[in-house]
Amino acid sequence: MTKRSVFFLSDHTGLTAESVGRSLLAQFKELKYEVIQWPFIDSMDKMRNVVRHINKLANENAPRPLVFSTFVDPHIRQCLKESQALVFDTFDAFTSSLESELNMESTYRYGQVHGMGNSSAYQERIHAVNFALNNDDGAITRNYPSASLILIGVSRSGKTPTCLYMGMQYGMLAANYPLTEDDLERHALPPALVPYKDRLFGLTIDVHQLQRIRKERRPNGRYSSLEQCRYEINQAEALFKRHNIPMIDTTAMSVEEIAARIMVRTGNESVITK
Amino acid sequence: MTKRSVFFLSDHTGLTAESVGRSLLAQFKELKYEVIQWPFIDSMDKMRNVVRHINKLANENAPRPLVFSTFVDPHIRQCLKESQALVFDTFDAFTSSLESELNMESTYRYGQVHGMGNSSAYQERIHAVNFALNNDDGAITRNYPSASLILIGVSRSGKTPTCLYMGMQYGMLAANYPLTEDDLERHALPPALVPYKDRLFGLTIDVHQLQRIRKERRPNGRYSSLEQCRYEINQAEALFKRHNIPMIDTTAMSVEEIAARIMVRTGNESVITK
Repeated sequence: MTKRSVFFLSDHTGLTAESVGRSLLAQFKELKYEVIQWPFIDSMDKMRNVVRHINKLANENAPRPLVFSTFVDPHIRQCLKESQALVFDTFDAFTSSLESELNMESTYRYGQVHGMGNSSAYQERIHAVNFALNNDDGAITRNYPSASLILIGVSRSGKTPTCLYMGMQYGMLAANYPLTEDDLERHALPPALVPYKDRLFGLTIDVHQLQRIRKERRPNGRYSSLEQCRYEINQAEALFKRHNIPMIDTTAMSVEEIAARIMVRTGNESVITK
Repeated sequence: MTKRSVFFLSDHTGLTAESVGRSLLAQFKELKYEVIQWPFIDSMDKMRNVVRHINKLANENAPRPLVFSTFVDPHIRQCLKESQALVFDTFDAFTSSLESELNMESTYRYGQVHGMGNSSAYQERIHAVNFALNNDDGAITRNYPSASLILIGVSRSGKTPTCLYMGMQYGMLAANYPLTEDDLERHALPPALVPYKDRLFGLTIDVHQLQRIRKERRPNGRYSSLEQCRYEINQAEALFKRHNIPMIDTTAMSVEEIAARIMVRTGNESVITK
């Protein structure tokens, strides 16, 4: 079966177009496709060049190319729509209905969302990424008063990527603290965490997956033995239960999912909204 | 002016719905709105609850709520469309036309894109985030043979968040190396970088913005003086030019923009496509 050519096109980063295209195409399990991603098409000249490329492909392959795009400029959009591709443009689909509902005209400015449009929100996100980096792995606990959230869990349960993602996506100040064997043997919350009990969130993970991940780091020794993984997970989960710490199983979840679920569970949808 | 209520709703993380909604609304500069983000609406019961919430708001406020959503299940979508909101659902807009073009039926599976749908691509992204963390700040250079890209620049020019983002979004193995004063005085590439000259990418930044960012870190001393910032930036840019290292000015750019521009400039659109 010939692969379908799929273009993600935009006058800016193309992140929205990609997100829309990938979610839609994922609904067609049998579909084989090849993506061409082309961001920053912000002039008619650049678009004419893209259209030439699309039409060339269309004349070579049987199935016509698909385009997912987000162009704010109607002229650039029009030029694209005259190509031989089937175009799904989110702005084209929704802008005019939004204009009449709001009784306002679109300003046709690009790069408002994944740019620095709202500079203070952007600075907060970068600050939150730096916060996650500086408060990773429990080495420094003196910034916990500023943290909105402290993720806890055994080594390799997914704390660090989740904290980074929550910073990057939601501007959430998330620190993390690894539960060591010493912590787990004490059957009590590590003293550094006690004052922040209501900001704790536990991560757990399937024992076999934990072992797989640990083996990539250190193939031999107790750290990646099944017994050790099982012991740590059991102890950690018991600790979460004993202290009523909300917990999430990261086994089958992406960081995007873990982060979104934590935002909901901690009532932080309001943070999402800024 | 009453703020418009805007909902970002989804059966999964809601990242696509948010991205679509925010890019569209950014086109209406005068619009004041308040966002309610509600991910994981994956049953009719949950949707009925959401609809009650929407209708309650609609009866309180004059302007009707706006909804940006991505629901794969047509029944859940239908329930939403019967609410009092104006609904912009990306799946509703594009799925049937996509079905007839592809001559396939949508499988109505949710969570395919921001989940672990494609597990190996997901593992690559997490591996790339860990790579960025482990090869940050030039402390370790022995993994450079595995790097696709090594970002170089003076302290606080944006290297670390960019590397992390490139890993998270594109699965790109990006290391970074800070140009120290010693490096800059030598007028030569740091020896650790010489074998990887074709993977280097330079970041530069406006002198005043660099000073502002450095002052947040260390308010006093030479590190954040204007003279020092100017000296380092001039030397770094001269170094990039002398060695034909591609360079990008990060001053007015978000990490999303920096990353997308670097992908284009290094011909790595193909990496984007996986």
